[in-house]
Amino acid sequence: MDIEKVSLKEKFGKFNDYWSPKIVGELNDSYIKLAKFKDEFVWHKHDDEDELFLVIKGRLTIKLRDKDIELNDGELVIIPKGVEHLPVAEQEVQVMLVELKSTVNTGDMSGSAMTVENLDWI
Amino acid sequence: MDIEKVSLKEKFGKFNDYWSPKIVGELNDSYIKLAKFKDEFVWHKHDDEDELFLVIKGRLTIKLRDKDIELNDGELVIIPKGVEHLPVAEQEVQVMLVELKSTVNTGDMSGSAMTVENLDWI
Repeated sequence: MDIEKVSLKEKFGKFNDYWSPKIVGELNDSYIKLAKFKDEFVWHKHDDEDELFLVIKGRLTIKLRDKDIELNDGELVIIPKGVEHLPVAEQEVQVMLVELKSTVNTGDMSGSAMTVENLDWI
Repeated sequence: MDIEKVSLKEKFGKFNDYWSPKIVGELNDSYIKLAKFKDEFVWHKHDDEDELFLVIKGRLTIKLRDKDIELNDGELVIIPKGVEHLPVAEQEVQVMLVELKSTVNTGDMSGSAMTVENLDWI
């Protein structure tokens, strides 16, 4: 078995597209993904999946219907299943995600132009 | 529903004991845990659970039977189920873990003095 470490910095250097998560690892029934966000995503929810956002570099706002959550480097939030949310970043932000393998980025809005299926491993 | 962000730095400031993971979040069937390591743990494996170690601050060596993996800030490794490993830290290291809720820190060595059950939330 080939067990290798993952450098987040090195992986973030491998892509530049926004809102398109890349897989860097899997454990149990989950993927570890990295993504760069800029500007505004789409309001959505995941009916059956909780989702973790950890900011590695930059600033990310997760808008909820009743408040905004502001995340800086080293801050994370877990959005429970069923909760509508809208990620927004004024400047580019680097984010690590922990998600069930079944999770689609746009959740219940999976017909959106922002939807990414068949994610790449990097 | 009360959704709050988690600052890793703030949480690491709340405890000083080594090898005793604290829970800071849950998603799906997993916990997000923080731990401080120093010196050497015990060789063990988790028969049914993969385990993620992300170094937040410091340097961590994960010894495997056939090689050592050296992790610095912003580097992670996933140890697959069944693989024996030994975490070692010459100096204090701050680590974020992603684990199934069923995971016990010492795995198959759960009779060890290092075993921690009934983890605290911080």
